[in-house]
Amino acid sequence: MTAPASIAEIRALCADLPTGDAEAAAAAAARQGVLTKPPGSLGRLEELAVFLARWQGRAVPVLNRVDVLVFAGSHGVAARGVSAFPAEVTGQMVANFASGGAAINQLARAVGANLKVTPLSIETPTADFTVAPALSEMEFAAAVSEGYGAVDPACDMICIGEMGIANTTAAAAIAAGLLGGGGEEWVGRGTGVDDAGLKRKAETVDAAMALHGASLHDPLEVLRRVGGRELAAMFGAALAARRNGIPVMLDGFVATAAAAPLARLAEGGLAHALAGHVSAEAQHGKLLARLGLRPILDLGMRLGEASGGCLAVAVLRGALACHSGMATFAEAGVSEG
Amino acid sequence: MTAPASIAEIRALCADLPTGDAEAAAAAAARQGVLTKPPGSLGRLEELAVFLARWQGRAVPVLNRVDVLVFAGSHGVAARGVSAFPAEVTGQMVANFASGGAAINQLARAVGANLKVTPLSIETPTADFTVAPALSEMEFAAAVSEGYGAVDPACDMICIGEMGIANTTAAAAIAAGLLGGGGEEWVGRGTGVDDAGLKRKAETVDAAMALHGASLHDPLEVLRRVGGRELAAMFGAALAARRNGIPVMLDGFVATAAAAPLARLAEGGLAHALAGHVSAEAQHGKLLARLGLRPILDLGMRLGEASGGCLAVAVLRGALACHSGMATFAEAGVSEG
Repeated sequence: MTAPASIAEIRALCADLPTGDAEAAAAAAARQGVLTKPPGSLGRLEELAVFLARWQGRAVPVLNRVDVLVFAGSHGVAARGVSAFPAEVTGQMVANFASGGAAINQLARAVGANLKVTPLSIETPTADFTVAPALSEMEFAAAVSEGYGAVDPACDMICIGEMGIANTTAAAAIAAGLLGGGGEEWVGRGTGVDDAGLKRKAETVDAAMALHGASLHDPLEVLRRVGGRELAAMFGAALAARRNGIPVMLDGFVATAAAAPLARLAEGGLAHALAGHVSAEAQHGKLLARLGLRPILDLGMRLGEASGGCLAVAVLRGALACHSGMATFAEAGVSEG
Repeated sequence: MTAPASIAEIRALCADLPTGDAEAAAAAAARQGVLTKPPGSLGRLEELAVFLARWQGRAVPVLNRVDVLVFAGSHGVAARGVSAFPAEVTGQMVANFASGGAAINQLARAVGANLKVTPLSIETPTADFTVAPALSEMEFAAAVSEGYGAVDPACDMICIGEMGIANTTAAAAIAAGLLGGGGEEWVGRGTGVDDAGLKRKAETVDAAMALHGASLHDPLEVLRRVGGRELAAMFGAALAARRNGIPVMLDGFVATAAAAPLARLAEGGLAHALAGHVSAEAQHGKLLARLGLRPILDLGMRLGEASGGCLAVAVLRGALACHSGMATFAEAGVSEG
């Protein structure tokens, strides 16, 4: 499918989403029941194998190729003192990704995944969304399209993640816009702001809600008005994955907020997504719960860059190794309980 | 160091345990502080890198060789109807390990670890510990010694695990013997017993406590009287690891109970151990908490075989990949916050 060129085309792609392969899921569940272990004793690993079967449409799913898609963007609201790091760190970290020195470079290699970093006009920050929409309609469609096009239909899973100084404030604004509640209920310390910074973040979100309130009934408008390019791109990637039979691994608060509009645009719109971890960012657990997502890992991580989701791929590899490699009771001559 | 040949030699090895390398730990912590990420943002991954540094005695720890040591034993109390599976499954699963069909075969391969299975006289069940000590002093010393000798001083980490129908009842008895509380407070459903089976497990533990009560002040006597050969061997392996500068990954309820006497024999006796996961076995979480161990994974697993601990090695690999591979702020030219 071609990447969408306009908001109308994005909206059309969000309608009528594929619902997964129930037959493949049932076959995977049946196989789990005859493998040499007490039924259910692999816990979440069994559920994950069945999940991957459903969304890959294969009774024995594979993770031969996992792409980690990291998008980077710059934010007008960074000027409001909502981050512990200066705005130029976004570009510096993109260079660090390119030279292989960031956490996600190491984690992608450790789990056997391919890292692809896409900087999105990082020299041009979005508008400060307390005074105007973060992105024009054209800019927004272009960013969604870039994310959509970054998904190779040949891969078996994608992990989505981001880099963008100030983007936890954008994520909090998206959460507030989609789910209600004031800034205080959705902001956290991000890279490590102090109490005054936390207060500025909450005020920034509240100002955005006041400005854009009349448009927040539309999940795409929420993403355009208070999001950012890397968030729009992650949304586009999650949408492309769904349309191409590819499961998605979410990362932390920002990636989850970016994908969240899909759950509001269509019933079960995020059913093909896993929460790789619950972040130490204060409101991530609440956001996951509101979306009905249960994290795989809980390791106090709060880095972004797809780091937590990428690490969770190791758990999926374990789940699939058991699913495809274990003997059945009959094959092994083991007595059943 | 030679494996111990008697209870007196085991006791001597438990005294005066090495305390880890504080200098290596401090160097690792300092390195974490200058890597290109907000300080602390890799959460538990940072702590795990520092832990491995301390117990390997290397500022940049490695996991080039991880051995998964699975011990199997047979239990006299199996005849009391405390398992959902018949006793012959222990031997059948040992054959399944040998032919590569069990979950742990797949998980060890998935995380790049070597599996070594040691059956311990599985044709000779221990005595029913409601009527006599499970093991004689000679049998106990031999099993501890076998576990001790299974640890190759050249490896970088061991995972310990087990197979033994009825051994969650032995583990519950060890927990009750070491930490107090009745059978009801320590039993769980194991491979999946019904309510009547659960009641029989609790009664079996209570009968054991009544019979052996006068000897339970001695942690080694607890392990000998109400444990089993594979539990004694896991204890021996954990002890050998400590004496050889090798960190230990625990698995579920049974492996944790087997190692627990070390924590009672010496202050900080389990400081070199990680809890790979918290099992779905009802009392594992409580046992970990009582031992001051915080699980890495929580995936509802309850299989044993070292499966949960082995999977957690993947998290350690991610932690060390970041620790050793990331650029510093200075190297990458990234501004600090």
